[in-house]
Amino acid sequence: MISDKSRLRIGLIGFGCVGQGLYDILQQLPEFGAVVKRIAVKNPTKSRTLPADRFDFHADDLLTDPDLDVLVEVIDDADEAFRLVSTALRNGRQIVTANKAMVAHHLPELVELQQAHGGTLLYEASVCGSIPIIRTLDSYFGSEPLHSVGGLFNGSSNYVLSRMTEEGSDYGPALAEAQALGFAETDPTLDMGAFDPRSKAVILVAHAYGVLLNPDQVLNLGIENITAQDIRFAAAGGQKIKAVASLQRLADGRVTVFVTPQLVGPASPLYAVEREFNGVVIQAAFADAQFLRGRGAGGHPTGSAVLSDLAALRHGYRYAYHKHTA
Amino acid sequence: MISDKSRLRIGLIGFGCVGQGLYDILQQLPEFGAVVKRIAVKNPTKSRTLPADRFDFHADDLLTDPDLDVLVEVIDDADEAFRLVSTALRNGRQIVTANKAMVAHHLPELVELQQAHGGTLLYEASVCGSIPIIRTLDSYFGSEPLHSVGGLFNGSSNYVLSRMTEEGSDYGPALAEAQALGFAETDPTLDMGAFDPRSKAVILVAHAYGVLLNPDQVLNLGIENITAQDIRFAAAGGQKIKAVASLQRLADGRVTVFVTPQLVGPASPLYAVEREFNGVVIQAAFADAQFLRGRGAGGHPTGSAVLSDLAALRHGYRYAYHKHTA
Repeated sequence: MISDKSRLRIGLIGFGCVGQGLYDILQQLPEFGAVVKRIAVKNPTKSRTLPADRFDFHADDLLTDPDLDVLVEVIDDADEAFRLVSTALRNGRQIVTANKAMVAHHLPELVELQQAHGGTLLYEASVCGSIPIIRTLDSYFGSEPLHSVGGLFNGSSNYVLSRMTEEGSDYGPALAEAQALGFAETDPTLDMGAFDPRSKAVILVAHAYGVLLNPDQVLNLGIENITAQDIRFAAAGGQKIKAVASLQRLADGRVTVFVTPQLVGPASPLYAVEREFNGVVIQAAFADAQFLRGRGAGGHPTGSAVLSDLAALRHGYRYAYHKHTA
Repeated sequence: MISDKSRLRIGLIGFGCVGQGLYDILQQLPEFGAVVKRIAVKNPTKSRTLPADRFDFHADDLLTDPDLDVLVEVIDDADEAFRLVSTALRNGRQIVTANKAMVAHHLPELVELQQAHGGTLLYEASVCGSIPIIRTLDSYFGSEPLHSVGGLFNGSSNYVLSRMTEEGSDYGPALAEAQALGFAETDPTLDMGAFDPRSKAVILVAHAYGVLLNPDQVLNLGIENITAQDIRFAAAGGQKIKAVASLQRLADGRVTVFVTPQLVGPASPLYAVEREFNGVVIQAAFADAQFLRGRGAGGHPTGSAVLSDLAALRHGYRYAYHKHTA
């Protein structure tokens, strides 16, 4: 545990949307008592918002720097992210990541590495941006059986479906608008094809049910073939089409996970979650229905989740994986 | 910290709705590894759902019993609750309470007693039942400035307003229905007069802003004088009347807290929170808008919050009161 008194020295790996968001937040919060001591990026020639001498170009140097208390890994490349995070954990370090694909593909190893070497990995920012869903499932509902966890885990596809519903437009024009406004990537496959929410579902099922799945074991159907006519059909029945991730405990005890377009009626709190927002519904054995809504992406909201993880590390927090180890 | 391996031995003080709810949950969850070793109640002659020999009639005996790991205080009487909880804390014990009036009226002393004697008090169940709002404010948003926290903290008054809106009825008949269905107390003053949500607002403002207020410093206006005509007036503008608790940081840095009937439009997530449900909207500096919804009362939902506190105690969790001590 890092002393509450000292200044937390951060090594930041990656300076894209989330990295800059976190940097900006920490600049605005001197009372948090953290300093970004080193920033590692890949491309030495790219123009950036900070002076060139603020950057390192060898992330590995940060992993072994004893003057850094905690590492924050926020790069895009999932394979390189796993190499860096697993090396850091092998060195017993404390590290925060936002990389959902990396966590989803390597969760069993990441859990083992923490147990074997005493390091800590937190990744609240990897699922639903600013919504504290991993911590809520891992800690708050860590002892309570859950009937289901479902939600809208992808703001880009939700934005497209919202616009199709509002405008009566087809998929193509709605996607183009989302891309123009920065709510969807140039290559929309990960989001629209439900690969991104599939990764998030794999992470949540580990904390909600203690089940470690490979993303390939989860059915994901995207929204690319949804038409304006489908939306009208849903609306005629008072419903909307949403890209819903479903995690459910079946009567026989098995857990099923899938991400598909589903009809959602006004009785569900997901019905009112529009555009880039994310939402999660938890059906718990005793607490009954719980609902959380917030921003699933963006530099500040995602940076806010990283900030919470940094504060949690300071207080010795680690995921219990209660249901996994039970 | 209590070892994860051992069975948690609980001393339960009070066996009303929440006490029985918790007892029932623990019966259904042997894997939680807790045993209710002693139960203290006030009235020796009252008929109860457990055999008479399960009960003690002197709560003080539990406070000093070294064979109990943790105490759970869930009695109605706020003065007696404070006497018991403060005595337990003076003995350095770990205790969970659900008594919002007691916590709201004595928070400064309760914080001091924990610091002075090393005991721990958790009280998630005291605000919005099963919604993990205290922990979310204390831990997850412990480092982030919040613009506002607002919500529907009282299921009874929300139920009455919902029924008035649905039926076009006046306050009296809607209250009578809520009382008949168990959604409102025989003496409705605490709920309908907004004294209950005022206590909850006082608790949340301590965790959200580090401000310790006495409930008397918070304006509370009830819903007793709301008429069917008022509801129609709101509806004509596309709005509903809700009993909203508002915690806000003003531009000059001061924090203002009040609980009053307010007009709520469909753009607010509180608009769709109906009947006995509670909801909380957090407007955070970086995470932006967060919303949580769940059951604010009932034996199982409130017992679920106590269960989470018991699990948290086991892992050494205590409120940081970050913003208070900062």
